[in-house]
Amino acid sequence: MAKRLVPLLNRVLVEKIVPPSKTNAGILLPEKSTKLNSGKVIAVGPGARARDRNLIPVSVKEGDTVLLPEYGGTEVKLGDNEYHLYRDDDILGTLHD
Amino acid sequence: MAKRLVPLLNRVLVEKIVPPSKTNAGILLPEKSTKLNSGKVIAVGPGARARDRNLIPVSVKEGDTVLLPEYGGTEVKLGDNEYHLYRDDDILGTLHD
Amino acid sequence: MAKRLVPLLNRVLVEKIVPPSKTNAGILLPEKSTKLNSGKVIAVGPGARARDRNLIPVSVKEGDTVLLPEYGGTEVKLGDNEYHLYRDDDILGTLHD
Amino acid sequence: MAKRLVPLLNRVLVEKIVPPSKTNAGILLPEKSTKLNSGKVIAVGPGARARDRNLIPVSVKEGDTVLLPEYGGTEVKLGDNEYHLYRDDDILGTLHD
Amino acid sequence: MAKRLVPLLNRVLVEKIVPPSKTNAGILLPEKSTKLNSGKVIAVGPGARARDRNLIPVSVKEGDTVLLPEYGGTEVKLGDNEYHLYRDDDILGTLHD
Amino acid sequence: MAKRLVPLLNRVLVEKIVPPSKTNAGILLPEKSTKLNSGKVIAVGPGARARDRNLIPVSVKEGDTVLLPEYGGTEVKLGDNEYHLYRDDDILGTLHD
Amino acid sequence: MAKRLVPLLNRVLVEKIVPPSKTNAGILLPEKSTKLNSGKVIAVGPGARARDRNLIPVSVKEGDTVLLPEYGGTEVKLGDNEYHLYRDDDILGTLHD
Repeated sequence: MAKRLVPLLNRVLVEKIVPPSKTNAGILLPEKSTKLNSGKVIAVGPGARARDRNLIPVSVKEGDTVLLPEYGGTEVKLGDNEYHLYRDDDILGTLHD
Repeated sequence: MAKRLVPLLNRVLVEKIVPPSKTNAGILLPEKSTKLNSGKVIAVGPGARARDRNLIPVSVKEGDTVLLPEYGGTEVKLGDNEYHLYRDDDILGTLHD
Repeated sequence: MAKRLVPLLNRVLVEKIVPPSKTNAGILLPEKSTKLNSGKVIAVGPGARARDRNLIPVSVKEGDTVLLPEYGGTEVKLGDNEYHLYRDDDILGTLHD
Repeated sequence: MAKRLVPLLNRVLVEKIVPPSKTNAGILLPEKSTKLNSGKVIAVGPGARARDRNLIPVSVKEGDTVLLPEYGGTEVKLGDNEYHLYRDDDILGTLHD
Repeated sequence: MAKRLVPLLNRVLVEKIVPPSKTNAGILLPEKSTKLNSGKVIAVGPGARARDRNLIPVSVKEGDTVLLPEYGGTEVKLGDNEYHLYRDDDILGTLHD
Repeated sequence: MAKRLVPLLNRVLVEKIVPPSKTNAGILLPEKSTKLNSGKVIAVGPGARARDRNLIPVSVKEGDTVLLPEYGGTEVKLGDNEYHLYRDDDILGTLHD
Repeated sequence: MAKRLVPLLNRVLVEKIVPPSKTNAGILLPEKSTKLNSGKVIAVGPGARARDRNLIPVSVKEGDTVLLPEYGGTEVKLGDNEYHLYRDDDILGTLHD
């Protein structure tokens, strides 16, 4: 059974959203329209610890859809699923419909 | 439908202003007169978080016309539109008529 | 007899968990399924000392199962056992069943 | 019509003083006597924002004649005029008659 | 006669423990079992001076057995004895029986 | 007419002292005895601005004879005179008879 | 006549102790026994200025015998004597009989 990961400090565990490469009807989508590098937040750490020993809360929360930087992040494999860990301040923004 | 991006920390979402390459009457403009690298602010983050856990407000606001640095910024594609993300302190100034 | 190591500052002494390379029944496991770089916390330091001379407590505690970065850590040999020392903030997260 | 630029943070907009290369009477001046790299301050930002969220006032003000560093500064073209943006703390000093 | 060295700031004077290369009975020990890089603390400085002008006490004390990093430290020769100076925060931990 | 330069922040305007290469009586001095790199302080800035917005006073004052570092400093030409600008904390010490 | 140098900030003026290369009786000493790089403190600066504008006192005082790092320090020649300037925190320790 896959273990559950609780990130430390200001780390954020993200499951990348793989954009569909073809429509439901089976039509292939051009690469251009699949470019957005986004993910769903699975778990967040308690925040970075400031030198005054308080925690700086993380800017995103579990369930958020986030825009990720093109590079960076640490790949983590839990069971059959692949996740990525990002530092809170490397995440570019949150995405909303 | 295009998603809406809410920038994190002190990031600023900018839509670049493409300078007209010819006048309304169709006369081509020399490259020299189109040099200013400017954009319109679409959305701003809540500000960088200081170590005392307060937010440092972003220097620009939605709707501002801003002067951008020649290099830098992260390209973001939302639907058919192309935007750029800048850190608040990389924006050079605001432009006014 | 092996000596006992008490880490200084925010260092964490970890015993790496060697994933089984075959099942109890003797079937070889593919390398892919053994990838997670984890360990058990054996001892933690008192925490980094802030410039205000207070200690910033370490984020993990003795007995925690932790996710380790792919690189880094200092190998330490005590008696016949091999351990690794990590800085508190290099540890990626804690693992739970 | 040229736009007006309001610098952000501790940036200073400067119009460089082009030293005359010949006297009013038309006598060419040797390069040596035209060496001083100076400019007139056109506009200043509100100041860099300290981590305590207060502004650190800029050391020069509009109208000041300033001594500029040999390198650095960002060229900005507004209408037909060419300006340079400097960080407040890159300006070497103010010049007085 | 050898001089006595009082370290400054957060420096720690250490005499390295040379592991025996053979047993008391004269049997040669394999290199592998002699790997631990440890030393005895001879003297410690008053601590690094914080910007608030207070001293941050050193984490080890005279007489401690310490685990040393593989690289670093400054060799010091006092009389016939060879010592090493380390910064307090380069020492990995204390060793106990 | 030469302009007067008022340095900004913690900058110090120095006129280098050119050591005599021969005695009053005309005897050439060996290069070795002319080595000291010193200068006279012509003007000092108000001091570097701390993040708490106060000024940190400059360590030297107008008229001081100072020992200069071998490298560094920015050459400034005002009228026919050549000066050098140094940062306050690059000046090594003051010289007294 | 040689000038007197008053160091600035946390600089320390040191006269290096040249170890005798032979005994009083004229016997040459092996290089090994002359290795200690020490000096006598001639003058100290008032201390580095903290951002809160207070001075951090220098750790050594005039007359102290100090252990110097192998590299670093700025050579200064005053009259016929050769001295070295060190930053307070580059000095390794004080030596006592």
